[in-house]
Amino acid sequence: MSRARSEFDVIAALFAPLAKNAPGAFNLKDDAAAFDVGPGNEVVITVDTVIEGVHFLPDDPPDLVARKALRVNLSDLAAKGAVPVGFLQALSVNTAVTDAYLEQYAKGLAADVEEFKIPLMGGDTTSGPGPLAVSITAIGAVAKGKMIPRGGARPGDLLCVTGTIGDAALGLDLLRGKLKVAGRANADHLVARYRLPRPRLAAGAAIKGRAGAGLDISDGLVADVGHICAASGVAAIIERDKIPLSDAARAAVTLEPEYWPRIFGGGDDYELAFTLPHSYAGDLRRLAEEAGVPMTVIGRIAGPEDAKLGAVTVLDGAGRPVEVPKGGYRHR
Amino acid sequence: MSRARSEFDVIAALFAPLAKNAPGAFNLKDDAAAFDVGPGNEVVITVDTVIEGVHFLPDDPPDLVARKALRVNLSDLAAKGAVPVGFLQALSVNTAVTDAYLEQYAKGLAADVEEFKIPLMGGDTTSGPGPLAVSITAIGAVAKGKMIPRGGARPGDLLCVTGTIGDAALGLDLLRGKLKVAGRANADHLVARYRLPRPRLAAGAAIKGRAGAGLDISDGLVADVGHICAASGVAAIIERDKIPLSDAARAAVTLEPEYWPRIFGGGDDYELAFTLPHSYAGDLRRLAEEAGVPMTVIGRIAGPEDAKLGAVTVLDGAGRPVEVPKGGYRHR
Repeated sequence: MSRARSEFDVIAALFAPLAKNAPGAFNLKDDAAAFDVGPGNEVVITVDTVIEGVHFLPDDPPDLVARKALRVNLSDLAAKGAVPVGFLQALSVNTAVTDAYLEQYAKGLAADVEEFKIPLMGGDTTSGPGPLAVSITAIGAVAKGKMIPRGGARPGDLLCVTGTIGDAALGLDLLRGKLKVAGRANADHLVARYRLPRPRLAAGAAIKGRAGAGLDISDGLVADVGHICAASGVAAIIERDKIPLSDAARAAVTLEPEYWPRIFGGGDDYELAFTLPHSYAGDLRRLAEEAGVPMTVIGRIAGPEDAKLGAVTVLDGAGRPVEVPKGGYRHR
Repeated sequence: MSRARSEFDVIAALFAPLAKNAPGAFNLKDDAAAFDVGPGNEVVITVDTVIEGVHFLPDDPPDLVARKALRVNLSDLAAKGAVPVGFLQALSVNTAVTDAYLEQYAKGLAADVEEFKIPLMGGDTTSGPGPLAVSITAIGAVAKGKMIPRGGARPGDLLCVTGTIGDAALGLDLLRGKLKVAGRANADHLVARYRLPRPRLAAGAAIKGRAGAGLDISDGLVADVGHICAASGVAAIIERDKIPLSDAARAAVTLEPEYWPRIFGGGDDYELAFTLPHSYAGDLRRLAEEAGVPMTVIGRIAGPEDAKLGAVTVLDGAGRPVEVPKGGYRHR
């Protein structure tokens, strides 16, 4: 159950092939990588760590662990309107991590390196006593000054999301045996959404230049919209019945309305939440088609006259405030 | 013994102040940071993780832990001839890490943010069951194509190092009770060298454009010179008696010649090893003065006719090969 490969060997055999499209990665044999993002552009950079037992489950398939670790970072680039350039991987393993695990992990990473055309540019592989942990630093490029910030929401803006909301939290509940849903297809959909987010890169590219503020939904819809509000000095109103749900999530909340708080408050969807000035309202359908993902108006940005500054209010179909869980899903 | 501060609070209270000189860090309140490195330059980027119990000791002072975590990364930038631009910090804590620990940690980081004029630009703070771990991604800038690589050593080049070699390994031995040295001052010097490396940024800037190959000595002198040789397709010859030693290290090996392998093979010095074409030999003293750190020729790069390709041979004062430990100091 232990490893024959040394860290040097793991890097050379499993990870160096993922660097082949980045000349500045020097086959992962140098101390650093070098790159540039072209004239008129700037670098967008983000780091996120996933830890076994905290952000993923010990029996999650290793290839999906790798892909999720990368994708949650690509999701941040997407939310900022950035084009992926490359990534660095700081991988910490313990003695229980086998060669077979690392091989399957690297295979998953390779699949996404291919799919998203984002080379591995460097990293550090360490052995320690802790659980498996992966910190990925994702690097992207955006036209100078054009990164979509959190702080650009203005009263009157439309509040929009991509895709469907709440699936990942319900998928995690399913894996933990806390949720039962009717039908294998529904269950598979929810679990897949938890295990393998889809970074909305095309959506980020489509809304760039129009969206005032944006982020990816990782802490939960209400918490993340709250982050936009806090950074922008505004409040937000979400109409519950406009929140786009998958068939599986719809079935779950129809059967058990008590799952609603998981829709508002559950994390890990990695859809984008963004604000759009009203003047772009007519563009939304075309932007969604361009991005190949639905975009839905779920509410609006309010001024201080409508709501407590920074607050996010969720209204039911009759316009009554719904109680929402505080603080969202804080797994970090 | 536990924490009152949430991760959000730790970031806002302790780390956001370290981002104040980077407008593109958005006070650590966005999903990503944005920056550019100016026309004609490219980005140099590196990541290194330090883990409690592996790369630092549980009773190392928290401020020094933070500073070392940053400095080992700045050392990589130095070795590549890059000017620091900023850094990202992925910090994983467990429930045993107290508010007081984090405050002292942040204080140390703040001191180095100030000293090296390198702002914190982003990060991720996670809680997990493992030991304290810090992955720092350091970002630097260098004129396009001018990064000092590992692979640029050529037969006939001088092999040089900055500062003194072996101190950190002896300092670690001291802390572990495996070494006794005469005199408190000697002991303090060695331990300080282990705990707080000096990234040789001025040296890297001085040798840039002249050094063919370079890296920082983290795995050990022989192992790291071996990395240069492997990347460059050459061999190297080191003359043991030319290796610059501190008074403390000199005293140790004079008393106990069995400490020599720690000088060759011990890691963590974070001095630079670099190769210099013979034509620049006359510049070395001036470059050292410019950098404010001694630079010493310790040997030369050999062609395949002198030594086995990729091999590093250490010769004693009589020109006889000295046995050196295999593989250097592999703590990763």
